[in-house]
Amino acid sequence: MGIKVGVAGASGYAGGELLRLLAGHPEFDLTVATAHSQAGQPVAAVHPQLAGLDLVFTATEPDALADVDLVFLALPHGQSAALAAALPSGVKVVDLGADHRLTDAAAWQRYYGGAHAGAWTYGLPELPGQRAVIAAATRVAATGCYAVATTLALAPLVAAGTVAPDDVVVVAASGTSGAGRAARAHLLGSEVMGDLSPYKVGAHQHVPEIKQATGATTLSFTPVLAPMPRGILATVTALPSVVGTDPRAVLASAYADSPFVHVLPAGAWPHTAATLGSNSCHLQAAVDVDSGRVIVVSAIDNLGKGAAGQAVQCANLMSGLPETTGLSVFGVAP
Amino acid sequence: MGIKVGVAGASGYAGGELLRLLAGHPEFDLTVATAHSQAGQPVAAVHPQLAGLDLVFTATEPDALADVDLVFLALPHGQSAALAAALPSGVKVVDLGADHRLTDAAAWQRYYGGAHAGAWTYGLPELPGQRAVIAAATRVAATGCYAVATTLALAPLVAAGTVAPDDVVVVAASGTSGAGRAARAHLLGSEVMGDLSPYKVGAHQHVPEIKQATGATTLSFTPVLAPMPRGILATVTALPSVVGTDPRAVLASAYADSPFVHVLPAGAWPHTAATLGSNSCHLQAAVDVDSGRVIVVSAIDNLGKGAAGQAVQCANLMSGLPETTGLSVFGVAP
Amino acid sequence: MGIKVGVAGASGYAGGELLRLLAGHPEFDLTVATAHSQAGQPVAAVHPQLAGLDLVFTATEPDALADVDLVFLALPHGQSAALAAALPSGVKVVDLGADHRLTDAAAWQRYYGGAHAGAWTYGLPELPGQRAVIAAATRVAATGCYAVATTLALAPLVAAGTVAPDDVVVVAASGTSGAGRAARAHLLGSEVMGDLSPYKVGAHQHVPEIKQATGATTLSFTPVLAPMPRGILATVTALPSVVGTDPRAVLASAYADSPFVHVLPAGAWPHTAATLGSNSCHLQAAVDVDSGRVIVVSAIDNLGKGAAGQAVQCANLMSGLPETTGLSVFGVAP
Amino acid sequence: MGIKVGVAGASGYAGGELLRLLAGHPEFDLTVATAHSQAGQPVAAVHPQLAGLDLVFTATEPDALADVDLVFLALPHGQSAALAAALPSGVKVVDLGADHRLTDAAAWQRYYGGAHAGAWTYGLPELPGQRAVIAAATRVAATGCYAVATTLALAPLVAAGTVAPDDVVVVAASGTSGAGRAARAHLLGSEVMGDLSPYKVGAHQHVPEIKQATGATTLSFTPVLAPMPRGILATVTALPSVVGTDPRAVLASAYADSPFVHVLPAGAWPHTAATLGSNSCHLQAAVDVDSGRVIVVSAIDNLGKGAAGQAVQCANLMSGLPETTGLSVFGVAP
Repeated sequence: MGIKVGVAGASGYAGGELLRLLAGHPEFDLTVATAHSQAGQPVAAVHPQLAGLDLVFTATEPDALADVDLVFLALPHGQSAALAAALPSGVKVVDLGADHRLTDAAAWQRYYGGAHAGAWTYGLPELPGQRAVIAAATRVAATGCYAVATTLALAPLVAAGTVAPDDVVVVAASGTSGAGRAARAHLLGSEVMGDLSPYKVGAHQHVPEIKQATGATTLSFTPVLAPMPRGILATVTALPSVVGTDPRAVLASAYADSPFVHVLPAGAWPHTAATLGSNSCHLQAAVDVDSGRVIVVSAIDNLGKGAAGQAVQCANLMSGLPETTGLSVFGVAP
Repeated sequence: MGIKVGVAGASGYAGGELLRLLAGHPEFDLTVATAHSQAGQPVAAVHPQLAGLDLVFTATEPDALADVDLVFLALPHGQSAALAAALPSGVKVVDLGADHRLTDAAAWQRYYGGAHAGAWTYGLPELPGQRAVIAAATRVAATGCYAVATTLALAPLVAAGTVAPDDVVVVAASGTSGAGRAARAHLLGSEVMGDLSPYKVGAHQHVPEIKQATGATTLSFTPVLAPMPRGILATVTALPSVVGTDPRAVLASAYADSPFVHVLPAGAWPHTAATLGSNSCHLQAAVDVDSGRVIVVSAIDNLGKGAAGQAVQCANLMSGLPETTGLSVFGVAP
Repeated sequence: MGIKVGVAGASGYAGGELLRLLAGHPEFDLTVATAHSQAGQPVAAVHPQLAGLDLVFTATEPDALADVDLVFLALPHGQSAALAAALPSGVKVVDLGADHRLTDAAAWQRYYGGAHAGAWTYGLPELPGQRAVIAAATRVAATGCYAVATTLALAPLVAAGTVAPDDVVVVAASGTSGAGRAARAHLLGSEVMGDLSPYKVGAHQHVPEIKQATGATTLSFTPVLAPMPRGILATVTALPSVVGTDPRAVLASAYADSPFVHVLPAGAWPHTAATLGSNSCHLQAAVDVDSGRVIVVSAIDNLGKGAAGQAVQCANLMSGLPETTGLSVFGVAP
Repeated sequence: MGIKVGVAGASGYAGGELLRLLAGHPEFDLTVATAHSQAGQPVAAVHPQLAGLDLVFTATEPDALADVDLVFLALPHGQSAALAAALPSGVKVVDLGADHRLTDAAAWQRYYGGAHAGAWTYGLPELPGQRAVIAAATRVAATGCYAVATTLALAPLVAAGTVAPDDVVVVAASGTSGAGRAARAHLLGSEVMGDLSPYKVGAHQHVPEIKQATGATTLSFTPVLAPMPRGILATVTALPSVVGTDPRAVLASAYADSPFVHVLPAGAWPHTAATLGSNSCHLQAAVDVDSGRVIVVSAIDNLGKGAAGQAVQCANLMSGLPETTGLSVFGVAP
């Protein structure tokens, strides 16, 4: 008999990817999927890629989730805290939303607004010592998609003193699924195909999270919407702290024991398509010959390592399973 | 100890997908991958999505494949026969190429040219009685990508006498990976994005294969290159043989025991993205209110059920494994 | 002093393309653009590609359009008739909607519903004798996008007796702009990229229009949504009426004097990207070697020759101008 | 009688766009188009979007171009100088290649290699005083695509002392046409669709040109290949030199008389699709609330303002015509 799991808010894109991963997971039994307006509908009617999955959406209520061992929350920001508070303390929770990521209440107020629900264990297993912390936790806040891509690229370099924590500049492009499934005119296929479009320039809500997770003290972050369904490519640059540093070696050492982080052979640069459908992050680093800046490029699937895959990875650890259980390190390409 | 498998011609797109599926297969041990110009290179250097796979391409020679239990041939048309002939008779072979699909030597000459290598067991398990035939075979010719999509849509209707075998009209659009990985100017991203382009109009080499597999006697087949990496959508129309027929019911009955074929709920039509990365085929059928024609729409991943996934499904049967072993029925979407 | 023109319902995709063409037109003075919810907004705020166009949307009211010489109606189906009726009889009108295309009231009722507003002059100048009819008209109903692509491919062959009018099968794929600008979840970029999706299978509202315009008596028409913003590729097949017919020669002769219709050199097949942004239609025809069917492929820009470009072409004729005025025969590619 | 113009190296993407613009130009008579391997072929066979253009490629030889008034060179880097030297001095030349852009021979050697051919008048009319210089020149080196996008965003801010010239960081993504038309496997549609891929990280040949044109002294430039045929989105960041600066106002003032540069209304950010097919550049600037960095985003069509459009703009000035002649300020969208 497996570990019973449920997904709250499973009608969106991250929720759909969670259902796909959980339906194929060898140790988790997917028993509950909840939705709001689509409660009562077959899951496959909302997620056609799951044709053959015999599950119907129930309403998003605590009672529906009380009997499972572990719950994934894939709700809009601001809705996780209330539901989590209503769940039995014995039910483990992984929140894909932002409600419990930030330790700084003021930062929460400034970027999200409303009352701060307090911080949970931060769900990025690749941070030093974090696997054990996550394994011991019953409440985990999964990392934001841009934060995953940027933190995996930058955190080891700041920690090792390879780069200076101030004057960090990040430009990150994301596929459109990162913008969610709500019908909005600027996200229509006619608008996004053939288009690159920056948004929330100079004020993205992932900035405080990235600073908290990486140790960066000054961060310029510009997100761009790219014409593809999935994928994040983050270009992270910072000034070197020491001469003759080898940022790639620092990253390779930091992730030697991380099965999902691949520091590519020197000269090979990450690209997003290679991570599609996987829980992998591809990294490469170099020093800019002209400016001397350290440049790190990171590629992930925003719904994989950036959301659902990472959440399952955390749930594996919380359940005493190998972190790779039910996840793929290989991408679906071309 | 698992079943040792190898892939010949693994540097292309179908080969890469085979490696992805086999690397995650619980019963097959992927021990050999061969390539031509890329022999000696790490697999991950040629297929970045397989970063972390510790395997190097060897040259495509019979000796390299003599020690495995089963070989997948993902070679250009016309090259499979020679290599297969040089393999020990005890080595099971699944050929993804066209060399051994056609029973009609004249049709081979007309559409492919050169000497006909003779027909092998046809690798479409969903055809009536074919699972047992494949399970007993040591040489299997996997079905062509367009033939999979069209045959699953049409064969049961012809067999049941629901539609007339003459005057069948098929228009099928494929993602660009179906055109292969060779660098050709008309396949550049700049050319194919935003573009729909018909090709081989009125004379595609899958015509005789489709007729052989479906029982269609007269077939108009027009392939179209579509601006996406993967996926085939086949629109198949034929004249009804009987009044008041329900083509959907015939398909649902024909595939009741086929785990990878999903006849969608009435009114829901297949679309390719829902099958990405899976071995599934989605089907729907209706009768055209104006013309009275039966219209069947079929969607597959051309590299999944259309190539590598189907080949693994056949290999599972040939190895006494459940046909779903190591394959996914769920697509990666959005 | 130029000819004053206005566009009613200019906030959608066809309306935006009309504004682009009219802003660059040497003889028409674009003086009014109306919208519904976006009245009062600068045109460039709704259509960023028109940055630099100094025009503000007014409300869609007859008074706003009473002072112009010619009005383009780019309104949702069912709204054109009322507005047109309220305009002074001296104001020429080109309706891009369907309200006045069909001569058969019963067909209107069946496919659109509601009262039939009556037929206007059909706005396809390439039909025999139609240029003169359009030039003399004050009310013109522009052709539907799928109807343009299909009619230009088929009408001359039916008229010449080259093909039989019954048993016509058309599969046509369109870019997403054909589905309009209203925010709907199934049209999100995340859904349409990488996807081919059939819709309205066996019952599309363009069927009666295509039959009326081509002379086809039995028509099977299947539309498919393709992952690109613009373009229609129509594959039209019919049974030949005579042996040894040369459908390409019939088309070449029919369009010898049509500057926007290009019958490509034998062997070259149309593809949509080559028509982007132009008012051109590319055609090619052949006889299927297996089935003997005549296959004609047609490519247009659904917003160009399929909507706004064609409407301007009609307006040119109605205004005594050369039909090519302000329109391009060349596409924007790659 | 118009001004006779020719295009050398017209079989590539920039060349094709030049032919499109020149074929519709009211003052230039396109009389010669040369190509290498495709000499002797009809232009429309190589550029299907130009169906209807009655022109055949001639070989790329000086004699073929000796009789025109102005020649556009769209040749690979390193080939322009030799051809230009062989043309009569009375023939005006606009070079789209890099051969004559750099004033610093050492920089040429480092980034391009080979002998430096010497600098010509730099073809960016929007730089202060440059219109008159171009109008008086007979040899003009058109600006590189990335350099156009970056220079228009940055140069006025450096010149005004709004930002510091050191520590400039640019991440710019380009559509695939910027990579050219040569058949290379990594540019196949199957590879680029759904993919973002950085390249030449830390050492792009446009770095010295951008520094020369903008006055930046230290520049980190990372180019990214994006899944679309056309468009460049450049995100340019620099440290402010003064407190409380308004970078948008500086840009608006700098381009008040530049018809192709549109500083968007505050809060509206450029996106590439809005510039497709036009010669426009869309700009917006803001100060990052967290880092205090100035962020400028620039969008162009890499084949328009980034190549062919800009070259025609220069040729207009060199021929005493309004710079907007035969060019569009409006994009083709969606």
